[in-house]
Amino acid sequence: MPQLNTTGPESDSEALLAARLALSATAEGGEVMTDVEFFDWFDQRRRMHSQVVRRTTFAEMSGWDFVPGSGDLAHRSGRFFTVRGVRVSTDFGPVPEWTQPIIRQPEIGILGLAVRETNGVLHCLMQAKSEPGNVNGVQLSPTVQATKSNYTRVHGGASVPYLDCFREPEARGHRVLADVLQSEQGSWFFCKRNRNMIVEVGPEVEAGEDFCWLTLRQVNALLHYENLVNMDARTVLSCLPDWHHGTGPAAGLHPDVAIRSWITTQQSEREVSASLLPLSEVEGRDWFRTEDRISHRRGLFFSIVPVDVSSNRREVTSWSQPLLEPHGIGISAMLVRRIDGVPHCLVQARVEPGYLDVVELGPTVQYTPENYAHLPASDQPRFLDLVTGARPEQVLFDTVLSEEGGRFLNAQNRYLIIEADDGVPDEIPAGYRWVTLRQLGELLKYSHYVNVQARTLVAALRSVTGLPTGLPAAGVRSIGAAAPGRGGSRADHR
Amino acid sequence: MPQLNTTGPESDSEALLAARLALSATAEGGEVMTDVEFFDWFDQRRRMHSQVVRRTTFAEMSGWDFVPGSGDLAHRSGRFFTVRGVRVSTDFGPVPEWTQPIIRQPEIGILGLAVRETNGVLHCLMQAKSEPGNVNGVQLSPTVQATKSNYTRVHGGASVPYLDCFREPEARGHRVLADVLQSEQGSWFFCKRNRNMIVEVGPEVEAGEDFCWLTLRQVNALLHYENLVNMDARTVLSCLPDWHHGTGPAAGLHPDVAIRSWITTQQSEREVSASLLPLSEVEGRDWFRTEDRISHRRGLFFSIVPVDVSSNRREVTSWSQPLLEPHGIGISAMLVRRIDGVPHCLVQARVEPGYLDVVELGPTVQYTPENYAHLPASDQPRFLDLVTGARPEQVLFDTVLSEEGGRFLNAQNRYLIIEADDGVPDEIPAGYRWVTLRQLGELLKYSHYVNVQARTLVAALRSVTGLPTGLPAAGVRSIGAAAPGRGGSRADHR
Repeated sequence: MPQLNTTGPESDSEALLAARLALSATAEGGEVMTDVEFFDWFDQRRRMHSQVVRRTTFAEMSGWDFVPGSGDLAHRSGRFFTVRGVRVSTDFGPVPEWTQPIIRQPEIGILGLAVRETNGVLHCLMQAKSEPGNVNGVQLSPTVQATKSNYTRVHGGASVPYLDCFREPEARGHRVLADVLQSEQGSWFFCKRNRNMIVEVGPEVEAGEDFCWLTLRQVNALLHYENLVNMDARTVLSCLPDWHHGTGPAAGLHPDVAIRSWITTQQSEREVSASLLPLSEVEGRDWFRTEDRISHRRGLFFSIVPVDVSSNRREVTSWSQPLLEPHGIGISAMLVRRIDGVPHCLVQARVEPGYLDVVELGPTVQYTPENYAHLPASDQPRFLDLVTGARPEQVLFDTVLSEEGGRFLNAQNRYLIIEADDGVPDEIPAGYRWVTLRQLGELLKYSHYVNVQARTLVAALRSVTGLPTGLPAAGVRSIGAAAPGRGGSRADHR
Repeated sequence: MPQLNTTGPESDSEALLAARLALSATAEGGEVMTDVEFFDWFDQRRRMHSQVVRRTTFAEMSGWDFVPGSGDLAHRSGRFFTVRGVRVSTDFGPVPEWTQPIIRQPEIGILGLAVRETNGVLHCLMQAKSEPGNVNGVQLSPTVQATKSNYTRVHGGASVPYLDCFREPEARGHRVLADVLQSEQGSWFFCKRNRNMIVEVGPEVEAGEDFCWLTLRQVNALLHYENLVNMDARTVLSCLPDWHHGTGPAAGLHPDVAIRSWITTQQSEREVSASLLPLSEVEGRDWFRTEDRISHRRGLFFSIVPVDVSSNRREVTSWSQPLLEPHGIGISAMLVRRIDGVPHCLVQARVEPGYLDVVELGPTVQYTPENYAHLPASDQPRFLDLVTGARPEQVLFDTVLSEEGGRFLNAQNRYLIIEADDGVPDEIPAGYRWVTLRQLGELLKYSHYVNVQARTLVAALRSVTGLPTGLPAAGVRSIGAAAPGRGGSRADHR
């Protein structure tokens, strides 16, 4: 007869974990690497990584072709990903029906973060990783960032370091802290999702070249630097158990079941239909192809562009691939406010064509100004005025961060957290709700409830001083020489 | 400034609800209708419902055509549902690749159960409802069972009674107890899901013709009668908050995070690809069409058959529609056992082509013997020997129940709950896990984790005496004149 797990009631074990995470998020002292040492190390990594990305033509791409018949842009192996078309009709947003190119990548990759206790403090094993689409080459990524093609060695390249920590972790005596499939950009990916995993490992796991151990306080502080902590690291961090709250219930404006019911209502009542099309059926409508890009007739949204990449740091040292290049920097902004002392976020039930089940929760405002410029004022995003009109003291977070550099070229969003003032009406529209940070944390244990932009903002919100999240003000104090802040970017630091 | 909900910490409110549900599940006395009265009423309903279902030919169907080009079988309005084809390739199960017809119904319907306190005891508003595919005409359904086509009146028929209880319930002062999208049969439906809702209403809601108020004890007892409580009622019941456990954590063999991690592992590692095809591409392979059916070459799986229906009880009094007629009665069996006094179920991570995200948890054994007859012994389902070889005292539940009569013709499964003995190995295969009934209840708050067959078994398990679920033995004692039991069917009672 098997025995029950000996950790006792789960809440005790969860409470202990929350306390250990809180310590890692606040403690100064015990770091494996000081803040100054980190920046020196990271600068060195940037110098060591040699990556050249060169725009090319579709015809000159190595290994990629437009498939006869469908016109889909695919790798000859049939793996990695494909650029296809999608036809969307929806009752959400200003445009009821359209077609567009979209990235189809049915494989589920692993975004894995290893954590380990050193000097009594939990540390995260972060990686300095270059991606072809990054504006600045190297960014800070989680321990493992591997597609199935990577880790099953379709490339024929080198094996993925630390992958074993995330495969059968329990058999190795590692403790799984989080493990959940989450979606990625629903406007650019069709039903893409990745496995977000956090595993606590033992002292036998050491940092190799390109890897470093940082406390949660250090990682949180680095979130405030432009284009430094990459998207994969941010989404994994958002799946960490929330260390600000005990494991017991906490009051919120709406009970948990009411929040779930609201989400279900939005899923049920929104009409959205998205079906994959041959890419050739998209071209010739609003989209056209030249020898080196597929673009929208009016220059909106994004282009698909072919690049050649050579790198000294990847499993394979040179390759071609298409990248999706967004036009314009997006805005993702969350309005937050205390209600009876409990921090709440104003989330939006978003419909995007690539979502698996109609709706996911996004930030209060998520849009790219360029794509809305041609639309009338009445079609501008709700609550945008409260974001653009915020006074400096209301801005708790304001950093430009990059999206997935393995698929997107120079894709950046300006992430904002705005403390709402009395300008927010008590009655908000049906597609929006005030949810607590704890409620977002609960939803993040399950798949496809919180979108990738909101996940960055959850990670950011947990890192923020000033907001009553339970973090002492010390939580985000200076890291390295330069104080972070609005525009306090280290993006040029390489 | 809005105020926090005044019900106080959620756990208090949840604990109170669990106590009220437990009372409803155990109390004898306070029923609106005695057990004897229920059967008299139900017999009368069966006599009052006049429904004639007549097999017809595709050519003679009213309103349905094979769409030129695709060959899909569709209604001229474009609504309701469509019979299409699907191509499946998977690494799960004995057959790696196949094509088949499948029902595509993207609309999300409502399966709604209204509950109300009368005489101090919660009662469920159940409906006597006939469906064309039911083996016995009328079965007991939830309060509302409505497709979007129903409730937006595409039929042009009468309005759906009690629908208003489930639309904007909070605005009407009703309390939502559960509200979640759940999948249905992944072998027969492509990405079908329905909204499972339970709402507590006030005394102003009364039972109309064809409706009755029953306590949870009464509904639970009726689950043991053959083909009486319909699939929609069973899935909604499974989404009720679990009244056997407090809201606090409870020990299990695996912590909750480990169960979620195991599910994520199964989702990530199983390869499955299912894409819709024109129905015409399925015919001529293993499937063929005659004037009155689409069937498998070897007589396996199911047929699609056209029927004409006339009814005196529906929004529209006569119509044609296709139904999916399974060949053979399925088996859905759950092995259960106490581990340190806590009841655990042995669930299976199932891959079915129609699932939205690769895998859902199913019963230990789920199969139709006829479809496996041609396969070698090594391809028979795991643990089948423990089900077929169970001694009578191990069988806690054994009842033949119907699947959705609105889409399936004479679709029945034999549902079994078997108390496992020492024949179960401690080491079980990677695709199976022991999970507690409480853990299944937690997963049921979220979409697409527990499949429709397992949901019936969750509802059944909560109704079962003998298993240490916290229910006193009185919970399932006699209802009506006949004692239920193995084969104690009232299916002929009309």
